[in-house]
Amino acid sequence: MAFGWIDEQARARRRAGLVRTLRPRPADSPLLDLAGNDYLGLARHPAVTGAAADAARVWGGGATGSRLVTGTTELHTELETELAAFCGFEAALVFSSGYAANLAAVTALAPHGSLIVSDAGNHASLIDGCRLARGTTQVVAHADPEAVRKALGTHEGPAVAVSDTVFSVDGDAAPLAELAAVCREHGAGLVVDDAHGLGVLGDGGRGAPHAAGLAGADDVVATVTLSKSLGSQGGAVLGPAGVIDHLLNAARTFIFDTGLAPAAAGAALAALRLLRGEPERAAGARAVAAELHARLTDAGLTAVRPDAAVVSVCAPSPEAAVAWAADCRAAGLAVGCFRPPSVPDGISRLRLTARADLTGAQIAHAARVIVDARP
Amino acid sequence: MAFGWIDEQARARRRAGLVRTLRPRPADSPLLDLAGNDYLGLARHPAVTGAAADAARVWGGGATGSRLVTGTTELHTELETELAAFCGFEAALVFSSGYAANLAAVTALAPHGSLIVSDAGNHASLIDGCRLARGTTQVVAHADPEAVRKALGTHEGPAVAVSDTVFSVDGDAAPLAELAAVCREHGAGLVVDDAHGLGVLGDGGRGAPHAAGLAGADDVVATVTLSKSLGSQGGAVLGPAGVIDHLLNAARTFIFDTGLAPAAAGAALAALRLLRGEPERAAGARAVAAELHARLTDAGLTAVRPDAAVVSVCAPSPEAAVAWAADCRAAGLAVGCFRPPSVPDGISRLRLTARADLTGAQIAHAARVIVDARP
Ligand SMILES: Cc1ncc(COP(=O)(O)O)c(C=O)c1O
Ligand SMILES: Cc1ncc(COP(=O)(O)O)c(C=O)c1O
Repeated sequence: MAFGWIDEQARARRRAGLVRTLRPRPADSPLLDLAGNDYLGLARHPAVTGAAADAARVWGGGATGSRLVTGTTELHTELETELAAFCGFEAALVFSSGYAANLAAVTALAPHGSLIVSDAGNHASLIDGCRLARGTTQVVAHADPEAVRKALGTHEGPAVAVSDTVFSVDGDAAPLAELAAVCREHGAGLVVDDAHGLGVLGDGGRGAPHAAGLAGADDVVATVTLSKSLGSQGGAVLGPAGVIDHLLNAARTFIFDTGLAPAAAGAALAALRLLRGEPERAAGARAVAAELHARLTDAGLTAVRPDAAVVSVCAPSPEAAVAWAADCRAAGLAVGCFRPPSVPDGISRLRLTARADLTGAQIAHAARVIVDARP
Repeated sequence: MAFGWIDEQARARRRAGLVRTLRPRPADSPLLDLAGNDYLGLARHPAVTGAAADAARVWGGGATGSRLVTGTTELHTELETELAAFCGFEAALVFSSGYAANLAAVTALAPHGSLIVSDAGNHASLIDGCRLARGTTQVVAHADPEAVRKALGTHEGPAVAVSDTVFSVDGDAAPLAELAAVCREHGAGLVVDDAHGLGVLGDGGRGAPHAAGLAGADDVVATVTLSKSLGSQGGAVLGPAGVIDHLLNAARTFIFDTGLAPAAAGAALAALRLLRGEPERAAGARAVAAELHARLTDAGLTAVRPDAAVVSVCAPSPEAAVAWAADCRAAGLAVGCFRPPSVPDGISRLRLTARADLTGAQIAHAARVIVDARP
């Protein structure tokens, strides 16, 4: 049997308690959601869903081709222009997903002979970008600018340091200013993934690079996703116009992928405009995270102090994490549950996301449910 | 300057006449489109755009998380069930793009120690899948089952052969039945990318694996995209339930990517239902391609006989191809233009796509424009 080896892996997964299953949700779930990445509560905002609907009607169900052939509409350009301006970068290029944007940025900016210095806690899409790139990757300790300095010091020629701005598992922030300083010392580029920073960090949600004074620098490239704070789907790379032009000419996940669906571009653009008009949403998400963290740690749980809108709570084992999350769900609360192999350090945790639109009562209730269900 | 090396590449591209630019289209383009992959003319169908709009309103602008967390809706499940049934496979798993589906299928089915035998003409996303996979890749001659047999004969342990069903550049079909026979001889799996087959080939557009009697086999996995015949965005992997369950547990572009936006899932589902209700659309696209090919070759042009809905016309040089496409555009006709590095063989061509909804007069007009503009 060609795929017989799969059965053995499936058995091993069952033995280890690591089986994953899909749990389709209905349109109106009764659960309080602290698991999704809809940080600003915009995915269901009528202006966002209305814009998605309008875009589908005006532009069609799909982009119909690569953005280099028929897949670029004026709507894509509008989104790119406004996104770049909002985040403080010269130019932007929109992709079908944040994953694709990360593959593009890393592969296109790390040619043969170059060095990629990659944080050990980076997201899977950055790691896959490193694997696909022609350059050589050196993985360095998590959030450690000194380690990046050492790695860059060993190399002649083009180099980039690559890091999440906010790490997806624990929600801790990267030391961006220090990373940028180290990169500049060595003439290296800095590529940062602001998936969990856009809409949450920086002035009015302009993101972590903006907050660190790095937006628009000629040696800094940021990637973002449209699927979290902007409540849609898709991703983008932001950077100097020359870098964006290079990606357009060289990035395989841009050239050989169908353009982002108009509905997704429309939804993201509407969310961006809402955020611009209501800049307090960003601080709101951070405040909810801080409140949640305080309540959980006050009750004696171990949780990472949130730098953005992700609150990570340690669990004693994968099985305990799964049971904890299941108990929360039974009590009406959806929480994320991260465990190997999704977590590189082997520590299982509940992953809670703060939504700017949660009420004080909802936060208190959520914390109570989590504390009551503790293993 | 960190990214200074990019400028030299940009200059080289300009010297070689290989600069790419985006050409944003308006909502109502006056051009006759023979460049997009909307083979059945469904991207603008009111049932498709209406379903996209409804899905956005009901389910939100985005899926809000990984499909393993909050990103699976009942709509995703419905699409997977109907897609698998339509194509004749046991199960299906939907991804945010066809690109992501291909990365998932190849990486998850080619573990450490396995062999991947990959056709030299395969799509970039399959190639990237091979590069990311832990198995070893052997690239074999284009559409050559004998070469696949030889490669498989050199290996002990898990192996897969990987091929487009319809190659994206020239539109020629892979020898699927022969490939399956060779794989079976060696107990190897067969992974085929039916991006350009779904909706065009097979009974009522059920795709190339169905046409070859391979759908539902326990050693065959197919990938499809929702972005071509189904007029939307997204991709899917189709196969035995055990394989799909394996992907859900092991494929990084599934686990670490936000789920497909509801609007895209809704649009693809509506398109699938239209196709099921109007099975003649598939043959329509093939007939348009055949007619276009006949008119072009009758006029003395060199074009590959289309096995599906792509018609590839040879151009003498990259510059000639670009000028030819520009002249067509000036005459009101959008055609694709493929040239290095998008074409592995270095031959530049116009790439025409047949849409099932083109009229006889439109086909005749398009052929006339192309012939008149020949270099
Ligand atoms: C840090 C980070 N980068 C990139 C991505 C990928 O973005 P997307 O889901 O929009 O493809 C994610 C999550 O999905 C993420 O958490
Ligand atoms: C053969 C083939 N496979 C996969 C893809 C990728 O699919 P998608 O554009 O939906 O990501 C494409 C084209 O885009 C293709 O032509």
